[in-house]
Amino acid sequence: MIDIAREYRVALPAWIDDELADVPGVVPGREDRMRLVHRLADRNWREGNGGPFAALVAEQDTGRIVSVGVNVVLLSGVSSAHAEVLALGLAQKATGSWDLGGEGRQAHELVVNWRPCVQCYGATMWSGVRGLVVAGEGPELEEITTFDEGPLGADWAEQFEARGIKVTGDVLRDEALDVFRNYRQAVDSDDVTVYNARGGEE
Amino acid sequence: MIDIAREYRVALPAWIDDELADVPGVVPGREDRMRLVHRLADRNWREGNGGPFAALVAEQDTGRIVSVGVNVVLLSGVSSAHAEVLALGLAQKATGSWDLGGEGRQAHELVVNWRPCVQCYGATMWSGVRGLVVAGEGPELEEITTFDEGPLGADWAEQFEARGIKVTGDVLRDEALDVFRNYRQAVDSDDVTVYNARGGEE
Repeated sequence: MIDIAREYRVALPAWIDDELADVPGVVPGREDRMRLVHRLADRNWREGNGGPFAALVAEQDTGRIVSVGVNVVLLSGVSSAHAEVLALGLAQKATGSWDLGGEGRQAHELVVNWRPCVQCYGATMWSGVRGLVVAGEGPELEEITTFDEGPLGADWAEQFEARGIKVTGDVLRDEALDVFRNYRQAVDSDDVTVYNARGGEE
Repeated sequence: MIDIAREYRVALPAWIDDELADVPGVVPGREDRMRLVHRLADRNWREGNGGPFAALVAEQDTGRIVSVGVNVVLLSGVSSAHAEVLALGLAQKATGSWDLGGEGRQAHELVVNWRPCVQCYGATMWSGVRGLVVAGEGPELEEITTFDEGPLGADWAEQFEARGIKVTGDVLRDEALDVFRNYRQAVDSDDVTVYNARGGEE
């Protein structure tokens, strides 16, 4: 029989416990939720676990934190393990369903420190969240970090809305760019590993 | 401290062992690789693990099977656990790297029974594979199965090529449609659970 792997795990890094130690179970303010995301994103690349990206899933009305995620591509060795995929997967594990928008459930929102890449765009779409909150959108992420985010249509937000997912932008945008700039500075000093799509020339 | 889940696992269903029992470690023909994918896709929905989708990762030159994946959204409770994500993640686990196209590695290809949805489009892009082989593309998948595949640009294949990923289409296309039609027949008889993006009207 073929000798193949049967399963893989995706896990939060151990340092997440430090960062969450003083975080209450309910964070009612949207800016406060984004502030937590920025803090996790900043620590994540410094720890060498992956890119400067973090996310969380919260109940929209109560502000209860259901899950958090950081980009663990380097830590897990799995290229799809972006912050959004991790946060959504852990939220689904916590709620016991692949559909965060199932009948009788609280409405959930995904909070991320930039507009998702094309993979996480789809991952968000199929997750059942009713809201997506981003710190910002625009070319700055790719320009500063050099990550390739993939081709997303100009109507990306409308496509979410058409599927019942409300998009909220520009929540602590400048703070997101600060995280990206610090990351880039470290990249330029050869202090971190950058993973990414392969350029056509290689 | 917040009480949150720390990790999740994504695993192949137990029946995969039956299906792989007579499969050699190396399958040199591309059609034979697709035939295996179709077989796994067909069994997958019948077992109730997820949609009628399967994938595998093979070494392009040798035909060695590196991993297989099926859609385990229902089995795992994780909405991102599509066949491609599973096959790619397991291939990365097997090779010990988040980059299947890393220096000194065999070129890998992903074989899938239709053009990927928008999430798996991105997942493929960041995986390091050098080739994508699909049974087909076009509206038939959505029309027959009713799955929402998300918005993909008309230049989706060119976007892969620009990143060094060669796209091959129309490999056992009719056989793919047969699997989808059988699935749909069961859906219409209320025999299976359909998961999907939420329609705007709900």
